[in-house]
Amino acid sequence: MAEDQDYIYAMRHSLAHITANAVQHLWAGAKFGVGPVVENGFYYDMDLGDTKLSDADFERIEVEMRQIIESNAPFEQFDMPVDEAIRWANDSNQPYKAELLNDLKRAGTTEVRDLDATQLGVAAEGEGAVEQVSFYRNGDFTDLCRGPHVESTGKVGAFKLMRVSGAYWRGDEKNAQMQRIYGVAFASEEELKHYLEMLEEAKKRDHRKIGVEQDLYVVSELVGSGLPMFTPRGTILRDELAMFSNGLRERYGFQRVWTPHITKKDLYEASGHWAKFGDELFLVKSQETSDELVMKPMNCPHHTRIYASRPRSYRDLPIRYLETTTDYRDEKTGELGGLSRVRALTQDDSHVFCRDDQIETEINQLLACANELYGTVGMRLRVRLSYRDDSDAYLGSPELWESAQKQLKAAVEANKLEYFEQDGEAAFYGPKIDFMVTDAIGREHQLATVQLDFVQPERFGLEFAGEDGSAKQPVMIHSALLGSIERFLSVYIEHTAGKFPVWLAPEQVRFISVNQEKVTTEFIDKQVKMAKELGLRVGVDNSNESVGKKIRDAEVWRVPYTVVVGEKEMQSDRAMPRIRKDLEVLAAHPELNFEEFLRTVANEAKGRVSKSSL
Amino acid sequence: MAEDQDYIYAMRHSLAHITANAVQHLWAGAKFGVGPVVENGFYYDMDLGDTKLSDADFERIEVEMRQIIESNAPFEQFDMPVDEAIRWANDSNQPYKAELLNDLKRAGTTEVRDLDATQLGVAAEGEGAVEQVSFYRNGDFTDLCRGPHVESTGKVGAFKLMRVSGAYWRGDEKNAQMQRIYGVAFASEEELKHYLEMLEEAKKRDHRKIGVEQDLYVVSELVGSGLPMFTPRGTILRDELAMFSNGLRERYGFQRVWTPHITKKDLYEASGHWAKFGDELFLVKSQETSDELVMKPMNCPHHTRIYASRPRSYRDLPIRYLETTTDYRDEKTGELGGLSRVRALTQDDSHVFCRDDQIETEINQLLACANELYGTVGMRLRVRLSYRDDSDAYLGSPELWESAQKQLKAAVEANKLEYFEQDGEAAFYGPKIDFMVTDAIGREHQLATVQLDFVQPERFGLEFAGEDGSAKQPVMIHSALLGSIERFLSVYIEHTAGKFPVWLAPEQVRFISVNQEKVTTEFIDKQVKMAKELGLRVGVDNSNESVGKKIRDAEVWRVPYTVVVGEKEMQSDRAMPRIRKDLEVLAAHPELNFEEFLRTVANEAKGRVSKSSL
Repeated sequence: MAEDQDYIYAMRHSLAHITANAVQHLWAGAKFGVGPVVENGFYYDMDLGDTKLSDADFERIEVEMRQIIESNAPFEQFDMPVDEAIRWANDSNQPYKAELLNDLKRAGTTEVRDLDATQLGVAAEGEGAVEQVSFYRNGDFTDLCRGPHVESTGKVGAFKLMRVSGAYWRGDEKNAQMQRIYGVAFASEEELKHYLEMLEEAKKRDHRKIGVEQDLYVVSELVGSGLPMFTPRGTILRDELAMFSNGLRERYGFQRVWTPHITKKDLYEASGHWAKFGDELFLVKSQETSDELVMKPMNCPHHTRIYASRPRSYRDLPIRYLETTTDYRDEKTGELGGLSRVRALTQDDSHVFCRDDQIETEINQLLACANELYGTVGMRLRVRLSYRDDSDAYLGSPELWESAQKQLKAAVEANKLEYFEQDGEAAFYGPKIDFMVTDAIGREHQLATVQLDFVQPERFGLEFAGEDGSAKQPVMIHSALLGSIERFLSVYIEHTAGKFPVWLAPEQVRFISVNQEKVTTEFIDKQVKMAKELGLRVGVDNSNESVGKKIRDAEVWRVPYTVVVGEKEMQSDRAMPRIRKDLEVLAAHPELNFEEFLRTVANEAKGRVSKSSL
Repeated sequence: MAEDQDYIYAMRHSLAHITANAVQHLWAGAKFGVGPVVENGFYYDMDLGDTKLSDADFERIEVEMRQIIESNAPFEQFDMPVDEAIRWANDSNQPYKAELLNDLKRAGTTEVRDLDATQLGVAAEGEGAVEQVSFYRNGDFTDLCRGPHVESTGKVGAFKLMRVSGAYWRGDEKNAQMQRIYGVAFASEEELKHYLEMLEEAKKRDHRKIGVEQDLYVVSELVGSGLPMFTPRGTILRDELAMFSNGLRERYGFQRVWTPHITKKDLYEASGHWAKFGDELFLVKSQETSDELVMKPMNCPHHTRIYASRPRSYRDLPIRYLETTTDYRDEKTGELGGLSRVRALTQDDSHVFCRDDQIETEINQLLACANELYGTVGMRLRVRLSYRDDSDAYLGSPELWESAQKQLKAAVEANKLEYFEQDGEAAFYGPKIDFMVTDAIGREHQLATVQLDFVQPERFGLEFAGEDGSAKQPVMIHSALLGSIERFLSVYIEHTAGKFPVWLAPEQVRFISVNQEKVTTEFIDKQVKMAKELGLRVGVDNSNESVGKKIRDAEVWRVPYTVVVGEKEMQSDRAMPRIRKDLEVLAAHPELNFEEFLRTVANEAKGRVSKSSL
């Protein structure tokens, strides 16, 4: 497996060289920047003077690349003294390489820290001035490079050039703008095909597209970017998800609390967040008072105020607060889009205040909740155990860390969760468990976390009276199951491609009238009334369109069950629902009458069944 | 009735003179400011030099006042040229009166607009310089005064001096500080007694006191004033009330939406709020972008953005949005206290977008909701129909106003609501219905409103396609039933004195163990499990205290039903609840077993019954 990863890396990097080689054949005088490996592929930055590449050039470049691959030229490594390398760069008219080499000569890698050492022909760790650099040659192409590469050009996998975009040399907008050619590459044609299909599928499932099609949320220039508003249909998704997430925790004794969205900055000075994150917060200016306020980017400091408002005893713990509330983070607008990255994030947040000896049980319960939640929404969950490393970036005693990390691992194992461990990924205030979920097209997302916190209880001087009467300090456990509801929705809408299970579907049942006669309208009204009494969300299409058109409309809106009501259905009292295709039907069933049908759907929604039970 | 009011006014004003008269007898050289009538009584501002009055002086002053009253000296009116009056003031060493008279002489009432004309011995409307002023004399006391007064000092009602406080002369902190003596006065001793008892009762019911006693909400210096946080118990009150209010409207087709708490100020420039209320808003500064943002003080402009995000047809209307969300208003911190006046107000807000011909039906439905809500919480509701007056302060055509005001009145009458009409109380954008509720100790509060709005639909260019295909403009109906949940709670906690009905009680049932034996604990656990399955909120007191102490504790927390569990109860399976005294028991009942008892309470909570049905 590790070898596979090494091969994939070397092969993608070799393809970067081959891309540059092909471009050099086609556009003599091309000047090259760097060409690293990235997720799923590689890119190479180049300066072609006045020539502007476009997608239309990809075929020519790919044909040239295939010839280089067919030639099966070996990748040959050799070292060169840095002065000689600078002469090489100048003689070959490669000013960007010359700049890098001069930097290396003068100050070692310190001056070129912005770049991957692979691209520099030097070891990553060198700090002093560099004397010797590494090159690779394949056929007629030579490049400053530390490697590794595959043996010869014929050994690369399946690839495809994807796009070209502008990129400033070394990421600085004061520098020259270069052209960045991106490619993807996989070990086999089959994997490449699968990846490209996945991309195509992802485009179809784009939650921004479905958000408009299904009228889920709205953005407005007047309100601002990263501040989506939710329509009635989108609000049903939000509310149902939050209710589910909260209900799971309420079973374990979590209690809802409510805190305002603003606070004096004093609260974050006390918590320590102001010093660390002060410049990422929205500042709030009061025109009537001299208060310096901010919008809350998280809820823990507020919750400590509720905990601290009464004396607490060891018998009162754990105290578990739950609040679904909106936090505000001042993101650069360029990074905002759809629901993935927003400035208003609604968290299904909770905080446990407990004794040291209660950590494992509490974590256990939270993981059981997460397991049930992700099982119900049909997404594979694995967790990352994020531990501290040996650096001094962490607060709290090493013994407490060690014990806590053990308790986290025990809880993860007790819940039979797939997991991996990673040092150096902990928060500075404690170790955590990150939820990684895989969607229907194989993409993995980090959504929510369970975090231990030894620091805030100390900074806020939180206490409880121990069994012996002495003042002790509780541990805090931060957790969210969905994470931010907006981000969860961005993932979940794409996971389901907008085909929501019945319990989440904004419209669960739609009645379609065959005609607009009074008897039909009255019959449908009666069904709607019954459905509403059963707690169902129903729609009616009684428009003057053809039944065929109305059925197609209901399909566009992804309504789980559509029931056509005409004379036949009314006389026989048989519902005969059209069932959305993805809803696998679990049981053969006799034709249901209208009431039986509605009751079955209501039970399905109540049980959060993800397949149809009709 | 109107005569009674005139008598009360004259009598209270006469008591202000009598107070000053008595003070003059006791502290020769007292200098007087003004002494108007206020709600329930009167005050007089006076300058006693170095003498600082306190409550301890009230008895002496009252004794002196009673002598003046017993003397039954007539109140005699007489006019005086203003120059002669100025001489009188100077001769009597009354510099404040002299200042007023000089202002009147120089510029008429324009210079003394800050004061009630009654206090100035002139008619209210005069604008030019004043030549003649009015005085009243009783016994040895003479005062600049327009009246009216009672015939003689013996004709005043029952009174009591209440408190003395500092007050700057003419409300300006650059002026001298005077002492303000407040008194209350009523037509009869009985009414006075009733009022004083009510005050006493109000003190006991103070929601700030009960908020602490029952652990409902918390304020923190670190978070800021006017920004209360709600504990688990307080959050139950909030959530249950919001759920009730929303549920009433959802029956009529209202749909929940969600909008963020901030917006670019562009939204309020478009709505017109920026020009009117721009300086009452919290400004939000982004450190990452140049966006100029504000916190939303209301939700209507956001909701118009959802309406406007799709084309709408006459068949789609009414569209009804509902959002319980927190608005932020930048109040002076001096005005903030408890939950009555906060900077974070959570509104149970809704907006209907409808056609002109749908106004009456929509208003009808909203009033039916309000009627049911206030009936359920047991508060008398009457409404004020707030119409426009003849000024030009109102936007929208007079015909639309007239028709809309008629529709409001028709809806109020259809709902058999007690009402009164008042011109000049409308919002500039449309007429409204204000909900006035009377609490258990007779105080009236204005809580929520239903408002028509002709202006925002126009400013935002909202449209729907009419039956003939042409673009038409919808009307907006703003409404909230509770108003601000925080303010509603401040009233409601005092209305109930913290004895919440079962459906709202944070703890509905408490089990008290007679001993801590395993069999008792297990029995109680079983009951708790059953109660939770029935959706009840239960508490357990299994502490090592005496049963008597535990019962008294449950009483302090105002738990509706307390069930002592000992051997007898377990063996007989009889619940025998102790019922909170205010919960009038509706039906005699045989002893219920535990399950029957819990089911009865669950039904009571579900039905939002306000009395006990046990």
